[in-house]
Amino acid sequence: MSHGEFAFIRDHLLPLTRGDRAALELSDDAACLELSGNSLLASDMLVEGVHFLRSDGPAVAAQRAFGSNLSDLAAMGAIPRGFLCTVCWPTRYSTADREAFVDALGVVAAAENLALLGGDMTRADAPLTISLTMIGETTSDPLRRNGAKPGDQLFVSGTIGDAVLGLSIAKGELDKQDFLLERYQRPQARIELGQTLLNKATACIDISDGLAADAQHLARESGVGLEIEGALIPWSAPVLHWLENEGRAGVETLITGGDDYELLFTAPVEHAASILALKRTLGVDVTWIGQVVEGEGVRIQDEMGVPLDIETSGFTHF
Amino acid sequence: MSHGEFAFIRDHLLPLTRGDRAALELSDDAACLELSGNSLLASDMLVEGVHFLRSDGPAVAAQRAFGSNLSDLAAMGAIPRGFLCTVCWPTRYSTADREAFVDALGVVAAAENLALLGGDMTRADAPLTISLTMIGETTSDPLRRNGAKPGDQLFVSGTIGDAVLGLSIAKGELDKQDFLLERYQRPQARIELGQTLLNKATACIDISDGLAADAQHLARESGVGLEIEGALIPWSAPVLHWLENEGRAGVETLITGGDDYELLFTAPVEHAASILALKRTLGVDVTWIGQVVEGEGVRIQDEMGVPLDIETSGFTHF
Repeated sequence: MSHGEFAFIRDHLLPLTRGDRAALELSDDAACLELSGNSLLASDMLVEGVHFLRSDGPAVAAQRAFGSNLSDLAAMGAIPRGFLCTVCWPTRYSTADREAFVDALGVVAAAENLALLGGDMTRADAPLTISLTMIGETTSDPLRRNGAKPGDQLFVSGTIGDAVLGLSIAKGELDKQDFLLERYQRPQARIELGQTLLNKATACIDISDGLAADAQHLARESGVGLEIEGALIPWSAPVLHWLENEGRAGVETLITGGDDYELLFTAPVEHAASILALKRTLGVDVTWIGQVVEGEGVRIQDEMGVPLDIETSGFTHF
Repeated sequence: MSHGEFAFIRDHLLPLTRGDRAALELSDDAACLELSGNSLLASDMLVEGVHFLRSDGPAVAAQRAFGSNLSDLAAMGAIPRGFLCTVCWPTRYSTADREAFVDALGVVAAAENLALLGGDMTRADAPLTISLTMIGETTSDPLRRNGAKPGDQLFVSGTIGDAVLGLSIAKGELDKQDFLLERYQRPQARIELGQTLLNKATACIDISDGLAADAQHLARESGVGLEIEGALIPWSAPVLHWLENEGRAGVETLITGGDDYELLFTAPVEHAASILALKRTLGVDVTWIGQVVEGEGVRIQDEMGVPLDIETSGFTHF
């Protein structure tokens, strides 16, 4: 560690520990904390050009890394406790670029009251690469993907497809609309909803690969089939407006695009009323979109009962 | 996740979980485990061309990532519990390359009886990039860098400088010698030694940046100075042989080269006898090399008392 690296840690990273003693002031090789109940640990890697655009810049990269990783804890109903961050700075990055990344990470982490507890930085002739490890805990069994039963109902939070249109905006393919761009640039993990679903939902997944693909994952892990009513999939007003000119192909774009970071979950019908009422208590829209059936695979049908022909198994990042 | 990715996880990664239920069969977004006492969490990122050579190949990359990350837990006296792995495969990598990486990771993890508990894979036009998160626990306070007191004695495990010569061999700059190459290619974390030092050592660090630089880190965090007797630094037989033609400049190469993954630690003089006796009980060489003094910085002197002029603060990876 050079003097410059030491100063960067002290001046820019140490504030992100928010005084959490578990970080050991970032002076040792590991974070040290007491965890109770079930500890949940999730690691994801994001690479420039794969999970975000080079033109997004360091702040958006940090926001997307944080939101998408935190979403993994949301999907399991965990209470987040802190996070580790390893990052490889491209050699082209200036001190200002590194600061922009760290500052943005600090803002989104502060919004969740979460502390940076440790990590590592390196520098290479490589794309910006970020790996976060999110640390959480639950006192009860975590939500999993494998508990859906035939007869359960299928729900999704928020709206679908905003982020894929936000990505099109970021690429300059679509006119700018702040709401859609923000949904791509700053994903919001459904942490509170996930915790509320503990002991209620039978299976849960966060939508990172697209509604169609993640429904497929949930169906496979649970050993069931899913029937989704296309007409019930929730769209935001800007997406509805966009859909007017796109029709059926537009729907396919929206449900295969990914990066929604909404929760897709199943629950017995007797919990349906309390789940749909979460809008009032949590302020999160939850929509009933279908049901769990015996069999396998995902069938998404339009209002006429005609199946959409969606490739659900082969999602690839842009 | 594509069908191919799913099959790769099932066929190649799932065996690395060694049946540990905490991995949730790699089917969910996070690992789930119960941790007792202090949980230690360490994340490091290794990038091809920075922390290992492209010509090292995927198996050596995996071994170096695992050993160096595990060494962080050793430095704190933790009992390892498992690990998460995120990796970015270069687009040039074949299935055989990915399998070679995973198989090598499995071998070194099995040697430590450690299970892969989760992670993430991606693919990009980028160097091979690996981020591991090691999970450990201690029932007592972990070893830290900040507890050295004037009057404490300074010890180091194993031998110093083997890996930097191993790197020279890997680069084709030095004739092949298996022992030195192995020390570079497959670092062995001093896990058992670290645990033995709990409640004995006052400060501890693992040597990743080189003896000189890591001594500097320990001195700074403890707010003390360190005096090291150059004549007492332990060399292996191949290093001694190499040193015959290199003299003083050779010593500087060896103590600034890094990648030793030995433990450098301080302890009160009354523990010296039991610490030096660890050779018999653990089979790990421990050598007394100096002492802690008031002040700051690291002074390394030769047998005539003449200080070596070492730049300790600015280690940079090759």
